[in-house]
Amino acid sequence: MIIFIRTDATLDQRAELRHALAAEGARGPLGTLPLGTGDVIGVDASMLTRSGRERISRMHTVDHIVSIKTPYKLANLAASKQPTRVHVGGVIFGGGGIPPIVAGPCSVETESQIIESAQAAKAAGAKMLRGGAFKPRTSPYAFQGLGVAGLKLLARAGEITGLPVVTEVMEPGMVDVVAEHAGMLQIGARNMQNYSLLVAAGYSNKPILLKRGPSSTIEEWLLAAEYILSTGNPQVVLCERGIRSFDSMTRNVLDVAAIPLVKSLTHLPVISDPSHGTGRRELVHPMSLASIAAGTDGLILEMHPRPDESLSDAAQTIDPALLQKIVKDAYALHFAMGRSNDFSCRTDNIDIVHESLPLETVGLQSK
Amino acid sequence: MIIFIRTDATLDQRAELRHALAAEGARGPLGTLPLGTGDVIGVDASMLTRSGRERISRMHTVDHIVSIKTPYKLANLAASKQPTRVHVGGVIFGGGGIPPIVAGPCSVETESQIIESAQAAKAAGAKMLRGGAFKPRTSPYAFQGLGVAGLKLLARAGEITGLPVVTEVMEPGMVDVVAEHAGMLQIGARNMQNYSLLVAAGYSNKPILLKRGPSSTIEEWLLAAEYILSTGNPQVVLCERGIRSFDSMTRNVLDVAAIPLVKSLTHLPVISDPSHGTGRRELVHPMSLASIAAGTDGLILEMHPRPDESLSDAAQTIDPALLQKIVKDAYALHFAMGRSNDFSCRTDNIDIVHESLPLETVGLQSK
Amino acid sequence: MIIFIRTDATLDQRAELRHALAAEGARGPLGTLPLGTGDVIGVDASMLTRSGRERISRMHTVDHIVSIKTPYKLANLAASKQPTRVHVGGVIFGGGGIPPIVAGPCSVETESQIIESAQAAKAAGAKMLRGGAFKPRTSPYAFQGLGVAGLKLLARAGEITGLPVVTEVMEPGMVDVVAEHAGMLQIGARNMQNYSLLVAAGYSNKPILLKRGPSSTIEEWLLAAEYILSTGNPQVVLCERGIRSFDSMTRNVLDVAAIPLVKSLTHLPVISDPSHGTGRRELVHPMSLASIAAGTDGLILEMHPRPDESLSDAAQTIDPALLQKIVKDAYALHFAMGRSNDFSCRTDNIDIVHESLPLETVGLQSK
Amino acid sequence: MIIFIRTDATLDQRAELRHALAAEGARGPLGTLPLGTGDVIGVDASMLTRSGRERISRMHTVDHIVSIKTPYKLANLAASKQPTRVHVGGVIFGGGGIPPIVAGPCSVETESQIIESAQAAKAAGAKMLRGGAFKPRTSPYAFQGLGVAGLKLLARAGEITGLPVVTEVMEPGMVDVVAEHAGMLQIGARNMQNYSLLVAAGYSNKPILLKRGPSSTIEEWLLAAEYILSTGNPQVVLCERGIRSFDSMTRNVLDVAAIPLVKSLTHLPVISDPSHGTGRRELVHPMSLASIAAGTDGLILEMHPRPDESLSDAAQTIDPALLQKIVKDAYALHFAMGRSNDFSCRTDNIDIVHESLPLETVGLQSK
Repeated sequence: MIIFIRTDATLDQRAELRHALAAEGARGPLGTLPLGTGDVIGVDASMLTRSGRERISRMHTVDHIVSIKTPYKLANLAASKQPTRVHVGGVIFGGGGIPPIVAGPCSVETESQIIESAQAAKAAGAKMLRGGAFKPRTSPYAFQGLGVAGLKLLARAGEITGLPVVTEVMEPGMVDVVAEHAGMLQIGARNMQNYSLLVAAGYSNKPILLKRGPSSTIEEWLLAAEYILSTGNPQVVLCERGIRSFDSMTRNVLDVAAIPLVKSLTHLPVISDPSHGTGRRELVHPMSLASIAAGTDGLILEMHPRPDESLSDAAQTIDPALLQKIVKDAYALHFAMGRSNDFSCRTDNIDIVHESLPLETVGLQSK
Repeated sequence: MIIFIRTDATLDQRAELRHALAAEGARGPLGTLPLGTGDVIGVDASMLTRSGRERISRMHTVDHIVSIKTPYKLANLAASKQPTRVHVGGVIFGGGGIPPIVAGPCSVETESQIIESAQAAKAAGAKMLRGGAFKPRTSPYAFQGLGVAGLKLLARAGEITGLPVVTEVMEPGMVDVVAEHAGMLQIGARNMQNYSLLVAAGYSNKPILLKRGPSSTIEEWLLAAEYILSTGNPQVVLCERGIRSFDSMTRNVLDVAAIPLVKSLTHLPVISDPSHGTGRRELVHPMSLASIAAGTDGLILEMHPRPDESLSDAAQTIDPALLQKIVKDAYALHFAMGRSNDFSCRTDNIDIVHESLPLETVGLQSK
Repeated sequence: MIIFIRTDATLDQRAELRHALAAEGARGPLGTLPLGTGDVIGVDASMLTRSGRERISRMHTVDHIVSIKTPYKLANLAASKQPTRVHVGGVIFGGGGIPPIVAGPCSVETESQIIESAQAAKAAGAKMLRGGAFKPRTSPYAFQGLGVAGLKLLARAGEITGLPVVTEVMEPGMVDVVAEHAGMLQIGARNMQNYSLLVAAGYSNKPILLKRGPSSTIEEWLLAAEYILSTGNPQVVLCERGIRSFDSMTRNVLDVAAIPLVKSLTHLPVISDPSHGTGRRELVHPMSLASIAAGTDGLILEMHPRPDESLSDAAQTIDPALLQKIVKDAYALHFAMGRSNDFSCRTDNIDIVHESLPLETVGLQSK
Repeated sequence: MIIFIRTDATLDQRAELRHALAAEGARGPLGTLPLGTGDVIGVDASMLTRSGRERISRMHTVDHIVSIKTPYKLANLAASKQPTRVHVGGVIFGGGGIPPIVAGPCSVETESQIIESAQAAKAAGAKMLRGGAFKPRTSPYAFQGLGVAGLKLLARAGEITGLPVVTEVMEPGMVDVVAEHAGMLQIGARNMQNYSLLVAAGYSNKPILLKRGPSSTIEEWLLAAEYILSTGNPQVVLCERGIRSFDSMTRNVLDVAAIPLVKSLTHLPVISDPSHGTGRRELVHPMSLASIAAGTDGLILEMHPRPDESLSDAAQTIDPALLQKIVKDAYALHFAMGRSNDFSCRTDNIDIVHESLPLETVGLQSK
């Protein structure tokens, strides 16, 4: 069940509520999610007696209680009156604004490569930089990334261009150092159910990009998000990146329908990764547009100044020119669907777009 | 290998070529595909000796020969200089024109139901009518369709509204009667590898809508199309309708990336079926738009005047109002991507669209 | 629901029952399954009112009525007091006897090849001959089988060796000619949901071997069997032959657990096809033994006198020596599990086994 | 490539070889695998020039070099002349001996529960104890295990019964404490590609039980093993535990064919987990036998004194009586296949078996 706490509840009253819950037998990590008008606590009520629940509901601190049948409580759409907006620097995911586009190389390779990538990403209209310092590779003999040295190069590329950075963290013991250098922590697809990592990343209080595991159900994915939310960190962005299927012609099958489906189940933003989702460079443009059409809250794309020279994922990496075309066409679609008018965050984002997008070239009038 | 025949080859010369091929040991059904500037024959060259191949290539009838490594020869992109356009009445699939939208109920239920459906489909902007008379049902105890009586009702609804009709044929012995009443024959997903049916449908010389099997690879799908093409019938439209996956939250996973991928492999048009591809009514709109963004040559949608009363597939059936919204939004996207200007079939289709689309309402100027 | 008919019901009384059911609104094809002590009718009761059901249950013809929640009624375990035994010539599938082993080439290629195959199969201990005359091939350019000429060769090989034959039928119009030459009709995996074919094959009154579709759920498979049973033909053998998965290292994943699972759901026998289930010759022996250990009612194996010369499926085809080893080891396992003692059909089968199995060589005493 | 080192190579010579390899540009973690007659080093040779390779091969330390096309070098069958035997206490996995059976509850719940479980496991013929102290649970609200307290209880149950214990470790930081209390570390299916954990576990020098990820290919699984082997720890046991498929009737599909397939690719032992592989209690017995028939090097089974009271995985947990039946039937099958005679480790194991197995009761003579 989810307990909505009164806006005027004091810290003492909140502590009192927590003690009362423990005394009644509520189980599991009790997450708190500060969501605007009031706070919310997710509780596993399966051990609560009816009278216990009534005692809780009569406490002054409690505004009201909602019973949730879904196994994820904090990630549930019902847990928040509004879509969650995740802020990374000045970039906002979710809430209906213009979807940010994150771009950058699969791996940080050299200082010049990552700085050149960052500059190309910015020039093409991307709002955020990605790049792997720690690389989970299927083979122990493949390039594993530059590690902490790569983190520092990535951070420096971000500073030079003003783009916030997102990078993957692969083990609990590395969360601190990654959090020191990055604006957002990525949990990779292979680690979606690495619960120790989810919890450690959550406690960093950094925004988290949670990729869907290649054979994870929607429910398992939302429960993985729940692990992060249960640490009290509400800043989670989900990322659809393709599921494993029987046809080897593409690396994965990008489950585009997961985007609107997840948005009907959770208040968290969801973005799309057509690079991993297809594994084929020539499919990144159409699948970026398809994701936008389906309502994605952002895109994350592998881009390299010279894709064929990438040390990893070359087959799915696009060049800056194609990134620029994707940004333009994506925003043209977004406007064509009239989406930017519906949300309060519109003004800011329109400004951001105005900087970089000559909308006239795609047949749309600036508004 | 594919043999391109000279434009001026006579019927006698063609017969001579066929005899020469047989004498040299070419195997399998020899399909002929009339593709504009000259004809084309697909041949399994695996039994041809090098000298046999040279003898064939020196014949006057033969313009040139192309070796094809892919197992599908006639469906291969290389087999045609231009995208194939499939005509059903005045409706054109493929070739870059405005993608037609096909709509109608899962099953033909009653005369009034199918006529009302056809009128609602037309009013909403659909260009073609769908409806099942013979229904492949997983359970023998589920409603199996009205059969020939349903075919006649469907044909009548088509005549009243002027919409061409497409309907499924389930066995070779029924091809003739279905071809008599429908403008286009559908091969359903369960029958994608029912080779007797593919060949029988091909020989009807009707346009064929070939759905992808729920666990078929792209290559198997194109090879199924090859069966039809090998009868000499070039009018095949492919239809992506979702693949089977591990998550039961949707009926299937609509493989949107299959649309651009298939278009890079074949000259045949490919359309999208978001109704079966998701199985959920609320996902039909976003996945229709995603398909358009990915470059689909058309949409096929289950629509019923009163969806909840459908005898089959109610959960994925939309109502006329939502169909109208999808048509408008789909065409707004299509124009936003600047696609309609690129193709010669533009003029006709623009006219068709002008009738039904108040483009201004979706924020676009008419051109 | 399933209606159990009194043993002494006359044909007139049965007709009266059918009319009453129709009048009360029972829907769908009404199958009849003669199962020993009395007959049984499967009815879709979803349209029956409570009073309608009561009227039916009070009819003299009706012994009792069982409500079935599962969608398959006739295939349901509850529909029969005993496991169904399917007889093909003297060979018995099901009922707990020694599991028969069916063997033979993928395709009938020549007269000498099929006769040699049949003789090798018999010598190795197989009890039945398989061989394809009509071959469903993914590519229209692959060898499609010899057709009716192949059927006749297969039948002749059966006569010479005394082995009953099973062969695939691919379209309703060919059921009669295949039934004329074969003891058992096979419905292939690609056609598992070809409902016209299921019904046509059912009406032949021949025993049917129904392969599981490569991405069919257990329930869909049992519902496909239900189509056959609903024609009144109770002689259905299910065949697990591997499901499609994400790893291309094997052709399919043989779902061994489906064997005991299906046996807990239906009274029909289920056999295993490790040849298609793995696609790799070297896995046929271990997976045959695994299937026996899991309780299969039989094996069907692709065997060719010279496997590397097979026109189709060479990679998964074993030679006669390996077949002989599989037969011996399979029966050694069967006896080691003490299974043969439990069933009344034991005596006959033990005799059959005694002919060909020097049990001492596998460390077991003859009993 | 794999470098086989001469038996008489000194530590200094080995260090010299490593330096030479680094100087020539060999990349990745260099694993060493002590495999009997001589040692072996796996090297990523993709950066080696031809002349560099020649220089290496001429060094005195190098016996010979084998080029390996497969991406896993140390796990490759070619890397070892003999099957690897993994020792945990007196229990041996691999090498063709009698396959040990590991049993115990999903989770350690209380002291009495785990001690009672251990005693029941031993009495039933199991040779090793399993039990989860740290539980990876899909939901953060599910029981997460007792943690270090659970580890201690598990170790105590092992001491009392003399059974070695295996338990899961979920994060690198916990490897030390788990290794202190357990004889073998388990890497769970969700963590199969948690590379930090694989490497940390490898460096513990404890034997590792590596479960296959639910959607991992065989190659990915062997590459995960390669991560552990590359730390110099050769004691890896693979565990097939079912793959994810489209049918929800079973929790997973136990890929029995993976057992013989993996054994044809690697020298490492592979065991089977029919509990997770099916998720259904009634399928554990037949799938245990199927795994034995397919050649598994062991079984791991979830067993609880009172299965219905399990805090986790109750649906797939068997009781002691069924465990005893599985042990007996499994060994009867093993003997029926004549397998125990082929291997040098036979004598010890036969003794072990003699203690607990009244073979006569399953129709076999003691040898």
